[in-house]
Parts: sequence; structure tokens; C-alpha cells
Amino acid sequence: MDERAALTLLGDELAHAGDDAAVVDGQVLTTDMLHETTDFPEGTTRYTAGWRAVGASLSDVAAMGAEATAAVAVYAAPTFDDEALLAFVDGAQDVCERVGARYVGGDLDHHAEFTVATTALGRVPETDGAAERQTAPPVRRSGARPGDVVCVTGTLGRSAAALELFDRGAIERANDLFRFVPRIDAGVALAPHASAMMDSSDGLARSLHQLADASDCGFAIESATVPVDDAVSAAYADESDAAILETALTFGEDFELVFTVAPDALESVRAAVPVDVTVLGEVVESGVTIDGQALPDAGYDHGA
Amino acid sequence: MDERAALTLLGDELAHAGDDAAVVDGQVLTTDMLHETTDFPEGTTRYTAGWRAVGASLSDVAAMGAEATAAVAVYAAPTFDDEALLAFVDGAQDVCERVGARYVGGDLDHHAEFTVATTALGRVPETDGAAERQTAPPVRRSGARPGDVVCVTGTLGRSAAALELFDRGAIERANDLFRFVPRIDAGVALAPHASAMMDSSDGLARSLHQLADASDCGFAIESATVPVDDAVSAAYADESDAAILETALTFGEDFELVFTVAPDALESVRAAVPVDVTVLGEVVESGVTIDGQALPDAGYDHGA
Repeated sequence: MDERAALTLLGDELAHAGDDAAVVDGQVLTTDMLHETTDFPEGTTRYTAGWRAVGASLSDVAAMGAEATAAVAVYAAPTFDDEALLAFVDGAQDVCERVGARYVGGDLDHHAEFTVATTALGRVPETDGAAERQTAPPVRRSGARPGDVVCVTGTLGRSAAALELFDRGAIERANDLFRFVPRIDAGVALAPHASAMMDSSDGLARSLHQLADASDCGFAIESATVPVDDAVSAAYADESDAAILETALTFGEDFELVFTVAPDALESVRAAVPVDVTVLGEVVESGVTIDGQALPDAGYDHGA
Repeated sequence: MDERAALTLLGDELAHAGDDAAVVDGQVLTTDMLHETTDFPEGTTRYTAGWRAVGASLSDVAAMGAEATAAVAVYAAPTFDDEALLAFVDGAQDVCERVGARYVGGDLDHHAEFTVATTALGRVPETDGAAERQTAPPVRRSGARPGDVVCVTGTLGRSAAALELFDRGAIERANDLFRFVPRIDAGVALAPHASAMMDSSDGLARSLHQLADASDCGFAIESATVPVDDAVSAAYADESDAAILETALTFGEDFELVFTVAPDALESVRAAVPVDVTVLGEVVESGVTIDGQALPDAGYDHGA
């Protein structure tokens, strides 16, 4: 059974699976595991590893439209070097601080391969109502409706560019690109408006297919709108525009928010969200297309 | 750096480390990693692994005197076999159900060694006050005071007995002993009374030393009081009573609550806690002794 089949099996088994995070009693909870061979290329500093691993879980909280409260991590390695461990904790603390959460520790484990398990906790935000405070619902993957537009925050392809730069030994720039700010502020601002949302960690193409499956709808997007990060164009300067677009669409491991919203809410969304919002196209009845052609369900298999 | 030194380093770095779980905004959060070579002997079923791994994190919630809300896990293995995966989820769900929590899924990861990272979420319980509901404080490790008595719930040595039985091929009985009910009910009942508390996962001897360090006190316990589980005496029938006592004191991997309480609260505690409570001895100014002799700080190094 591959990982996607196994996740589908778990989705059938667990009522709360199938979103970026579980929601229990107004609390949002999510967990991930990253490890050296698949997630931290040679040259990744422990500071970047701490930032990125905890950031990945915070991104899942953001994808629910929730505020981030706290994060914990298990740091598993063959040996515990104090400099490496403190650098990891610094990275974890700094990414939490950037989104108003607290890094509250975790556990250590001996493991042959450097492995990090992270968990983030969030809460469904309160919104100022007329008479008393109200609670915004968490944003699921299942609420997209034909007529909505589909959008993405920020740019795509930073991690793809980072991988290329790690390969070439441009370590400092690669580490910079590998650290990202989880879109907590954007997610909270989107919570009252977005009809469906998830993060782009599996790649934009796969995210659209997952939203389509969850919402029983389709998407029609335009390639000219895809916000390719400048770092991709720079890192892949020898590649064709088509290859660069393909990378931005499918590479994944970025942590932007992909969401749907009614067109008449776009103005409010743009005013409230503290990062660029790009309209990629429309929610349609069925099928996922780019420029009228089928967009394959291709992207990153986590951990595969 | 060994694991204890590394944990001490983290304790200095993170204000919230040093208890069984972190407390943020009335929420209690804790995470652990278990893996095949050190935590799941040959013969451990995936059902037992799911129960035990999630149970270990729920036990940390119990040790704070908190109610258990939810748990998540990352299941990492070389391959995903659907029967094994569903058995794991069943075990995880069943242990959550036993303590009133919800198992809400998690993530999958490919890993050379079967590895489980678990996270449990709890909340500080509300207690019925006279006029309005009040919130009991979480119970820390640092509140023990000379004059208190030190107690333990249930019995000690089940995991030691299980390991022996796994070795001998008595697999079904070993699996039974390896599954335990996290002491959530006991922890919640103890929250208004206990001055300090932790779980016994590192062994009773080490737990007493950790409580002594955190509370800046000592303990004087009596060997005749130590509630050795019948399974230990049965599994180690050829051993001397002294060896059996040593096993119960130091083997660890049990998940009972070790706590301190004022002597005049004992009667209320015994009435409220739905499991046997054994008084082991007293909190003293300094030193950890058994029958008047120094009790070595020996026990289980997690993951070592």
C-alpha cells in the first residue's frame, strides 16, 4: 500500500482525518514527521531544520484558519551535540515567535537517522461580533463551491529552488529559502471568508486535486497567473519556462495557503490578508484544468 | 552528551520544560517517540503498539492532573500494511476511549525502523466551586514539601514482567501486560490535592529523584510498602525478593502516578481516586532513601 492509499484508509477509519489538522473542542491539533534522507538535504543547518519542521506543523494550523498557540517537537538523532540541539531549539522558537505561538519543548530520542516529529496546537479564532465575541469556524477542505474563485498566498517554488541550491553548494541562500513564515496571520484573516482551504505542501497541482475531491468540485486555472517565485527562475535559469512552471506547480514543499472564496469577498480578503493573494482561476463543477487542459494529479508524496 | 544532560540543557533553555507536559493557556500538551528496537519487543502486536504509544503520552497528561482531550500519532514504517495500520489505529482509539479522549489521526511517514511519535492534548479540569466553576491548577513536579507523604497509584513492574514474558514467547500475556490504562481519572481526582506529581515511566527510583530535584526536597520510603505487581513475582519466580524489589523500583516503563500530598488529605484522595493508592513514605528535607539507605538514582534512560 503506498502512502496515499494508506491515508485514504485512515480517512475512512477516522472521522477527523482528511483536513490539514484535527479540530477538537475548538482546539486545532496536527502532527508531522520529517527526516534527514527525505526532508533535510546536506547543508541544512539544525537551526533551519528546527524552523522548518515546526513551521510545517504551524502551516497546517494556518490552513484551518486557526491561531497558533504552541508547538512541541521530538528531536531524534544518533547523538546529542549541544550546539546542534540548541540551534534546533532556536529555530523552533524563532518560527513560533514569528506567528505568536510558544515553543514549549518536547522530547529527545536516540535514532539512527536524524528525525523530527513536530506537533502544533492552535485554536479557532474569535472574531469581533456586534454584541459579543463570536467564533469563526475552522476552514475545511470541503466547502469549495462552483462560482468561487481559487487563490494562493505568496509565491510557489521556494523549496524547489532551495533544493537546487543545496545541490550546488549555495548553502546559505538555500537555508534562507528553506525557512518560511507559516501563514498564520493570513489564515486567521481568511477564516471568515474562505469556503475551503489547505496548504500547498504537496504542490499546487496535488492540492487542487485534494480540494476538488474533498469539495466534490473542479478547478479551472490559468498558467499565466501562477505566482512563480523569482528564486525558481534564478535557480533554474537554463530551463524552459514550461519546465519552471511545472516545477512551481508540482514540486511542493512550499507552505502557502490554497483557498477558495466568493468573488465578492475578494476585496475584503485582499485588505485583510498581510501577504499577496493571487487569483488562479475558478471553481467549476468537475475536472482540474490549466489553460483548458487536464492538470495531472502529480506532486510530492510525503515521506515517499 | 547523554540524553539526561541534553534534557537538562533543554530545561535551561525552555521555561516550560521539566514537567511531564507543557501547559499553555489551560491546555496541556506532550509528545513522545517510541521505536521498535528500544520500545517494542518482538511479539508486540501493532494493536498493543498503538495502545501503548498513545497511552504513554496520555500518561503525561494524567501526571499534570489534566483531563485528556485528544491524541494524534505519526506512524512511520518501512511499508504500510493495511492490517497492521488498522490494528495500530484500533489500539490508539481504544486507549483514548478508555480515558474519554478522541484519537483524531495523525500522519504517516516512511522510515527504515518502525517508529511512532505520539502527542496528547489535555486541559486543566474544572472543579465545581460554590458559586461558579473554578479551574484546578496543573500539578507540577516542584510542589512537594517536607511533611507531605509520597504515594503511588496501582502497582509497579508490569512492563518488566512483560519484557520477560516476550523473551519467553508468552506473547499474549506479555501484550496484555504491555497495555495499560493511563491514570487520567486518578490524575484529575488528585489535581485538587497533590502538591507534586509525575508518572513512573522512568522507574520509581528515578521518579523520586526527579521530584526531589524539582521540589528541592528528599524522600524517605520503606521497601515493604512498594506495591510490586503480582506479574513480576510470577515472571521472576526464580529471583530473590531483593532482586524482584529492585526490578519494581528501577525498571520503569510503567505508567503509574507518583505524587505527594498532605497527610490530612489522604482520606479524601483515597475516596476520590478510582485505583489503589499506596503510601510509600514521607517527604523529607533532603536525600532519597529506602529503609534508611540511599536509594540510587537508577532507572530507565528513555531511548538510550
